[in-house]
Amino acid sequence: MAHAELKKRKRSDYKFYLEYRTRWSDNDMYDHMNNSIYYFLFDSVVNTYLITHCSLDPPTSSQIGLVVHSHCDYFAPVGFPAVVDLALRVNKLGKSSVTYEIGVFKRGEEEVKAVGEFVHVFVDRETMKPKAEGMGELLKGGLGKVVVEKANI
Amino acid sequence: MAHAELKKRKRSDYKFYLEYRTRWSDNDMYDHMNNSIYYFLFDSVVNTYLITHCSLDPPTSSQIGLVVHSHCDYFAPVGFPAVVDLALRVNKLGKSSVTYEIGVFKRGEEEVKAVGEFVHVFVDRETMKPKAEGMGELLKGGLGKVVVEKANI
Amino acid sequence: MAHAELKKRKRSDYKFYLEYRTRWSDNDMYDHMNNSIYYFLFDSVVNTYLITHCSLDPPTSSQIGLVVHSHCDYFAPVGFPAVVDLALRVNKLGKSSVTYEIGVFKRGEEEVKAVGEFVHVFVDRETMKPKAEGMGELLKGGLGKVVVEKANI
Amino acid sequence: MAHAELKKRKRSDYKFYLEYRTRWSDNDMYDHMNNSIYYFLFDSVVNTYLITHCSLDPPTSSQIGLVVHSHCDYFAPVGFPAVVDLALRVNKLGKSSVTYEIGVFKRGEEEVKAVGEFVHVFVDRETMKPKAEGMGELLKGGLGKVVVEKANI
Repeated sequence: MAHAELKKRKRSDYKFYLEYRTRWSDNDMYDHMNNSIYYFLFDSVVNTYLITHCSLDPPTSSQIGLVVHSHCDYFAPVGFPAVVDLALRVNKLGKSSVTYEIGVFKRGEEEVKAVGEFVHVFVDRETMKPKAEGMGELLKGGLGKVVVEKANI
Repeated sequence: MAHAELKKRKRSDYKFYLEYRTRWSDNDMYDHMNNSIYYFLFDSVVNTYLITHCSLDPPTSSQIGLVVHSHCDYFAPVGFPAVVDLALRVNKLGKSSVTYEIGVFKRGEEEVKAVGEFVHVFVDRETMKPKAEGMGELLKGGLGKVVVEKANI
Repeated sequence: MAHAELKKRKRSDYKFYLEYRTRWSDNDMYDHMNNSIYYFLFDSVVNTYLITHCSLDPPTSSQIGLVVHSHCDYFAPVGFPAVVDLALRVNKLGKSSVTYEIGVFKRGEEEVKAVGEFVHVFVDRETMKPKAEGMGELLKGGLGKVVVEKANI
Repeated sequence: MAHAELKKRKRSDYKFYLEYRTRWSDNDMYDHMNNSIYYFLFDSVVNTYLITHCSLDPPTSSQIGLVVHSHCDYFAPVGFPAVVDLALRVNKLGKSSVTYEIGVFKRGEEEVKAVGEFVHVFVDRETMKPKAEGMGELLKGGLGKVVVEKANI
């Protein structure tokens, strides 16, 4: 989606929320959160959702998610000691893959600071390949609850 | 202080508190928060206190804190997606230096998971040396509020 | 560019190289380098090039680079204790902005493990806006040396 | 050991060496490597030594090392884009535990920048308790090669 369109994202465009306190070490020498840290936050909100709503147990689950693509558009800086609100939705839910979108908001402000997507392919823990039958039911069911239909994108 | 004594620390032994959500990337391959991450958290609670209670403004303050020593004792693992409560006190407040102690607790559990200390020396931003008159009044005043007297250690 | 095309990248498709040793903490609990760490490496090779070949001095330069977009395609895992070869080129050099491409190779193997791009907009340190005249000559000159012409993409 | 004594450490006081390139994100807003990053580097040199000289295989080994204590004294700053030389020795080798010491040097300079220690207790992967017979022979043998006798401390 175009940079300009994504910049209009609001908290209400998402389905699951988690607040995160920034850390001193997140800021680089320009006193803003380093661009890479956003991806740490994306990973954190996605894996929290997978654990709490999709029955993922990282040390034992038979299927694990491999990241095959990620991207992020940055609109305005955020930095320590701000608290950020991470907002999650699923833009595409396939047989074995899922495309998440995450919006990063600053506590107390409306304008979105950054929007990113990343794609997980769920693979069998042993073979590291997708299963013929695709992702498990609990995963698919949980992820299905935060899908945003195309008409609403 | 001896490892065995520190293991008895309670939340009430501290004076300032901040909760922090752990991140996916904090866990190492043994599924526990990596030992180095605790220091990221120490830095975060200390700098938050300095900014909110001691008038520190990292990009402009004339005095900045240099870390000259740090240590940590680890009693039990914590890991993503746990929420941790960081608890802060000052064990020693000198002319230009301060020794912080931080306790790491897991949300919902009483036993302390790790206890660390670190020492800041406040130096002049330009010369990188302590000032003859020591740390500024606002710094000293703010830090003084979370000192725990020896009798109580 | 399509995922399939990028997967064919070779070391010789790039113009500047830097080796980086991975760190224990780079691996997540699946024993592979966390997807976010790639962006730390992108930042590192780009800023090293800017400092060594484009006269950037992060604490004092009048223009600094803000990241407005980043993305990465992941083809195969790498992890600690591997050594990676980072390979850099510039895909697009505008008046104030530059699009870098970075290939991540594993020491001793030919197939590329990940390819990413990110976009810097150079802004005036005081105003945080691009200058009317665009990026400085030393920046533009240095970046120009690693541009890969479209015909060669 | 006293801060002043440790400050005299030379490269030749150690037994195993590894160079590490610093990363852009290692620097905090004061343009020096953040104090926590040193512990990432300690972990990296120790685990590299365990993998290459002590037959440790983190995903499968029956014994794993838990960090129970760590500390660091900082003498002078280092920062991106410097290359650091990490130097390792073992100060104490017990039945199940080992105390490592790591010196951090800057490529091209003699004076040590920081010296730290950390203590690993090797535990059984299943029970998370030390084995009655202590650490395995391959671990003990490998670690024994980098012990520095007290007379030489």
